[in-house]
Amino acid sequence: MSHNRFGHLFTITTWGESHGPALGAVVDGAPARLPISEADLQHWLDRRRPGQNRFTTQRQEPDAVKILSGVFEDPDTGAQVTTGTPIQLLIENTDQRSKDYGDIKDKYRPGHADYTYMEKYGVRDYRGGGRQSARETAARVAAGGIARKVLDGVTIRGALVQMGPHKINRDNWDWAEVENNPFWCPDKQAAAQWEDYLDGVRKAGSSCGAVIEIVASGVPVGWGAPVYGKLDADLAGAMMSINAVKGVEIGEGFGAAALTGEANADEMHADGAKASFDSNHAGGILGGISTGQDIVVRFAVKPTSSILTPRKTISRAGEETEIITKGRHDPCVGIRAVPVGEAMMACVLADHKLRHFGQRAGK
Amino acid sequence: MSHNRFGHLFTITTWGESHGPALGAVVDGAPARLPISEADLQHWLDRRRPGQNRFTTQRQEPDAVKILSGVFEDPDTGAQVTTGTPIQLLIENTDQRSKDYGDIKDKYRPGHADYTYMEKYGVRDYRGGGRQSARETAARVAAGGIARKVLDGVTIRGALVQMGPHKINRDNWDWAEVENNPFWCPDKQAAAQWEDYLDGVRKAGSSCGAVIEIVASGVPVGWGAPVYGKLDADLAGAMMSINAVKGVEIGEGFGAAALTGEANADEMHADGAKASFDSNHAGGILGGISTGQDIVVRFAVKPTSSILTPRKTISRAGEETEIITKGRHDPCVGIRAVPVGEAMMACVLADHKLRHFGQRAGK
Amino acid sequence: MSHNRFGHLFTITTWGESHGPALGAVVDGAPARLPISEADLQHWLDRRRPGQNRFTTQRQEPDAVKILSGVFEDPDTGAQVTTGTPIQLLIENTDQRSKDYGDIKDKYRPGHADYTYMEKYGVRDYRGGGRQSARETAARVAAGGIARKVLDGVTIRGALVQMGPHKINRDNWDWAEVENNPFWCPDKQAAAQWEDYLDGVRKAGSSCGAVIEIVASGVPVGWGAPVYGKLDADLAGAMMSINAVKGVEIGEGFGAAALTGEANADEMHADGAKASFDSNHAGGILGGISTGQDIVVRFAVKPTSSILTPRKTISRAGEETEIITKGRHDPCVGIRAVPVGEAMMACVLADHKLRHFGQRAGK
Amino acid sequence: MSHNRFGHLFTITTWGESHGPALGAVVDGAPARLPISEADLQHWLDRRRPGQNRFTTQRQEPDAVKILSGVFEDPDTGAQVTTGTPIQLLIENTDQRSKDYGDIKDKYRPGHADYTYMEKYGVRDYRGGGRQSARETAARVAAGGIARKVLDGVTIRGALVQMGPHKINRDNWDWAEVENNPFWCPDKQAAAQWEDYLDGVRKAGSSCGAVIEIVASGVPVGWGAPVYGKLDADLAGAMMSINAVKGVEIGEGFGAAALTGEANADEMHADGAKASFDSNHAGGILGGISTGQDIVVRFAVKPTSSILTPRKTISRAGEETEIITKGRHDPCVGIRAVPVGEAMMACVLADHKLRHFGQRAGK
Repeated sequence: MSHNRFGHLFTITTWGESHGPALGAVVDGAPARLPISEADLQHWLDRRRPGQNRFTTQRQEPDAVKILSGVFEDPDTGAQVTTGTPIQLLIENTDQRSKDYGDIKDKYRPGHADYTYMEKYGVRDYRGGGRQSARETAARVAAGGIARKVLDGVTIRGALVQMGPHKINRDNWDWAEVENNPFWCPDKQAAAQWEDYLDGVRKAGSSCGAVIEIVASGVPVGWGAPVYGKLDADLAGAMMSINAVKGVEIGEGFGAAALTGEANADEMHADGAKASFDSNHAGGILGGISTGQDIVVRFAVKPTSSILTPRKTISRAGEETEIITKGRHDPCVGIRAVPVGEAMMACVLADHKLRHFGQRAGK
Repeated sequence: MSHNRFGHLFTITTWGESHGPALGAVVDGAPARLPISEADLQHWLDRRRPGQNRFTTQRQEPDAVKILSGVFEDPDTGAQVTTGTPIQLLIENTDQRSKDYGDIKDKYRPGHADYTYMEKYGVRDYRGGGRQSARETAARVAAGGIARKVLDGVTIRGALVQMGPHKINRDNWDWAEVENNPFWCPDKQAAAQWEDYLDGVRKAGSSCGAVIEIVASGVPVGWGAPVYGKLDADLAGAMMSINAVKGVEIGEGFGAAALTGEANADEMHADGAKASFDSNHAGGILGGISTGQDIVVRFAVKPTSSILTPRKTISRAGEETEIITKGRHDPCVGIRAVPVGEAMMACVLADHKLRHFGQRAGK
Repeated sequence: MSHNRFGHLFTITTWGESHGPALGAVVDGAPARLPISEADLQHWLDRRRPGQNRFTTQRQEPDAVKILSGVFEDPDTGAQVTTGTPIQLLIENTDQRSKDYGDIKDKYRPGHADYTYMEKYGVRDYRGGGRQSARETAARVAAGGIARKVLDGVTIRGALVQMGPHKINRDNWDWAEVENNPFWCPDKQAAAQWEDYLDGVRKAGSSCGAVIEIVASGVPVGWGAPVYGKLDADLAGAMMSINAVKGVEIGEGFGAAALTGEANADEMHADGAKASFDSNHAGGILGGISTGQDIVVRFAVKPTSSILTPRKTISRAGEETEIITKGRHDPCVGIRAVPVGEAMMACVLADHKLRHFGQRAGK
Repeated sequence: MSHNRFGHLFTITTWGESHGPALGAVVDGAPARLPISEADLQHWLDRRRPGQNRFTTQRQEPDAVKILSGVFEDPDTGAQVTTGTPIQLLIENTDQRSKDYGDIKDKYRPGHADYTYMEKYGVRDYRGGGRQSARETAARVAAGGIARKVLDGVTIRGALVQMGPHKINRDNWDWAEVENNPFWCPDKQAAAQWEDYLDGVRKAGSSCGAVIEIVASGVPVGWGAPVYGKLDADLAGAMMSINAVKGVEIGEGFGAAALTGEANADEMHADGAKASFDSNHAGGILGGISTGQDIVVRFAVKPTSSILTPRKTISRAGEETEIITKGRHDPCVGIRAVPVGEAMMACVLADHKLRHFGQRAGK
């Protein structure tokens, strides 16, 4: 067990604080001879990168990833490939502005982990949230880029399906729209409305939450395992480990509680040697094992805890006080959680793919 | 990694199928000299036991747990205590009626894991669902009884807060009521209404889902860890690993998405050397670490997949057909998930308690 | 992590004390559809069983293993096969004679773990050594029987190569002789001499140590991994975990320290697409990865600590005293360690086989 | 499981190749508020550093370690301390001279892992041995420096006790001598003789093996656990994972096989509430748990495989050929294994210290 490690065969170990010299991830267990370059990973990091528009923090970080180990030229093709040994991904912190954070050195911000870290460890890097900063998710996104290489044939896409109280109209779902607005929103109309809504939130110095949906297509039937190594159990843990996430659901999710057994059953037809399903209430997982349908996960992100309205709190010395969190912050951190959720989906699936072939012993 | 193991320091490894000779759990890592008896564990198993009223399956199993190892007389008190070595819990299967299940040998039941198991393993014990049966949760409940011993000072309680589409009125919440109705319902009025509702579901040969809430009181601030060993991440995985669970949320959960940052912040006051909070939207966890407040988890259980309405499916041979699942089944499996959710909460907390003291190295 | 668990993908979790009602192992991760029966496993247990001749303890245990889970009829062949779910192996303790052990309740036997268990846990099952008893190795041997099924095509054999100070003559090595004497000795002449030697040891109420060699043939090149998951590192841990083992070596072992680099190098020739080696100083492992040659491991077992000569010790109350260990004991426990070493070799290789195919992701 | 990770609660994950841009280790699980600086770790690295005399490789690397994460100023003292989050240690590779290694691109060096890596992965970084290079042990030594901080009160020392066929005279053992010669030899006379011996080996372009002894003093009784989490089992795996190690023994080790039970028993006397022992054949461990005596481990290192005498081998294309390994190499790699063995002892003990307090749950 390692508190900062994720996965069993395809593992990621992340390290680093928001305002230290660098952060990164060690990715271990990837198969050998997967073509991989820094540019491949940078593609995914650029999607997560803040500072791209007025709705995300104005912190300007290039978030340039370097591969320090685990790659070499393929003996046949000469291309840079994985070697089967650990891959160290390093991202330097270049825009730290530590002076912004002096105020929170001694006060605990409500909704942040300041109080719990101090009570647990007796010390914390308070600059920018330190280890609790969402900046840690950059390492996940880089690692997810390697996981996607392991998952050749699987497509993983994410979308924001609710911003604050405003849900998309699922009838309008168009994956192509996701790239056309700053919210990863698949509903063109909702995106337009959210723009006004979020401007209001931002100007009020307030914040709002969101719900993200991640879909993996092309996963064959059979990945996953009973009963604690279930694919959905690992996905739930993976998504809940993302900063600010407060809920996770698979397929029909909480809505399944209100359905009858008849309505919830995904009926099957024959499709060659496999089954085809009439519906996907299960979200692509039965008994912890993939059905061959799309795997569908949603998770809820709470509103950004850093807001301009003063909130009552206590200091490290135990005195009652108030705090306003200035600085550069996203009014809706859920937006940037979309690429992170995709990365965690990729990491879980890559791990389960290897575990599946492990238990089959090559058959 | 072991597919059938849960936990890091306090670990449970369950084994067994619904209709084999027995099932059970190996509990490893419990501290030594905890007083423990079969009667202590039986108490929790009796709460989960089916056949107690017309709303749960009529399968009559005593579910008597035996402790085969890991206990001995305390050298000072003579009482039976844990010895620090693995504790094998064994529950014999005594009421198996295998003849009931002949029909499902070759047909895949929608909503069950029949198809996925066969595609993954090429073989399955189809009798009563085999390893995918909810009977596996008896082993969890027994193991949870040991976890509660580890958690001296922590109280863990569960309740059904929604049956089918019908939610409780939280203003009526009374923990004492939970023991007064067959649904673990904390709202006396809701319980009365649910009785009629569920009678209708049962008579129609249908089924319904449910939402369960588990609350742990008395957990001190500081348990848990960043960033993949988060308390909430482990709770999410634990609850999602329970049969038929499709969603998990902590504290405000999915509702947090619709709140503003101001509304969601749990403001703090000084309470001696600790903080007291004005609210608990966080569900007792910040940054993956317990705050000292109640830890609040909810999870959604889908409607029982075994119903009397014929559903379209395929056979192992790939032929299209229909299936009705007769036999003894709960119209709402969510009811029996309450003690299971309590047990998983106990196992997660016991594990994190040990991990916490491990990282502190005795300080 | 679990103190009583071994392996990563093919895992064994053993439980049980010498004089409790039963002991056993949960074997998790085995591939599905391996033909397996209780008789298959009993074959290996019978080899380990004490009471077969005057050189091993007269405790008469049938050591009958029961399979409680994880097997079912194959849908095509009808044969009993593994299902891919956990396999519980249970061995009842039938000949416990607890009265023999009353004397050691309060005194710590030198060379045994009595003192360390009490200091660590504050309680111990003193009957027959409790959890520290070599009886735990019966569970390993049963689990090893399943591992051998995973290792189709690999042959694992063990031999005693030294008893007390008396080594075999390796020029006399004949695997067929191993089954012809009570010592698993591959050297017919040495076996004859050991018989007299061990009679003397036994009559003197003394004991002696031994060195065991385990050889695995048929392991293909490529199993294992850098740098902490090395095949030899896992073998070293596995063998050292057997009761009373004090040393482990691979191939040339400690002898390699005295060789020159020229003498120690295993030169290679072409053998089709693979290498053939002129020698095997490496013991079949280079860089933690199998070479395709025989894997050769030796381990040293200390003399049985239970002897009839009084030894100075202390009581639980901290008083100085003496102790003689009567009861039924092997003058040379190393003999019974041969099947145990074979089982651990099998478990390590089965685990690494699965890990190898896991990292290859089906290629 | 992670192939490149070691430990359970105190974990090290190393990464990096000999001739990549850098290598390092992520150390996770260390308690918070341990004072730590780069200079603290550099002290241990400097002891391992090659190029210090004519007996170790002339590669000139400063091996300067940087701490990239997991440390911060203590809120009370202002000193730099651990924060309880992962510590990334990075060592840049500055003297790589890749041109030296072109010859081994296509030929497999006997005794090295060239052949096994290529057969397993199909690609390898052949420059300087890549991941199989002993340079990886620099990361272990740095991590060991942190482990020593966890082990306040424990002293860990190592010595070379045999070079080639030449053993020390244990009667001459003087720990102070270890720092006075280039071999970490505790026997002044032996050190003088080894100097001549090793000069001869070096001039002949040959190499020799060695035996190293590591001793930990001050470990209290009670660390470790049955039966697969034994302290000695973990030490055996740890030492065997070091490059070129072929054997490990605890206390009396292989010599125990030749002793009688009477001679091998470590008799006990009362020493307040604890035991004092008359001898330490056990090497400080009984039943996998520390006795409070010195923990004594020895391991054998094979002769350096890189020698100037041509050896028969095959090429990647499967053609038979010969190879001489020029370049900068140690005639006795065992010398540099001394600080590495110390580091692994420290890592195992730190991990077990945390595990011990974990299972005690703070008591």
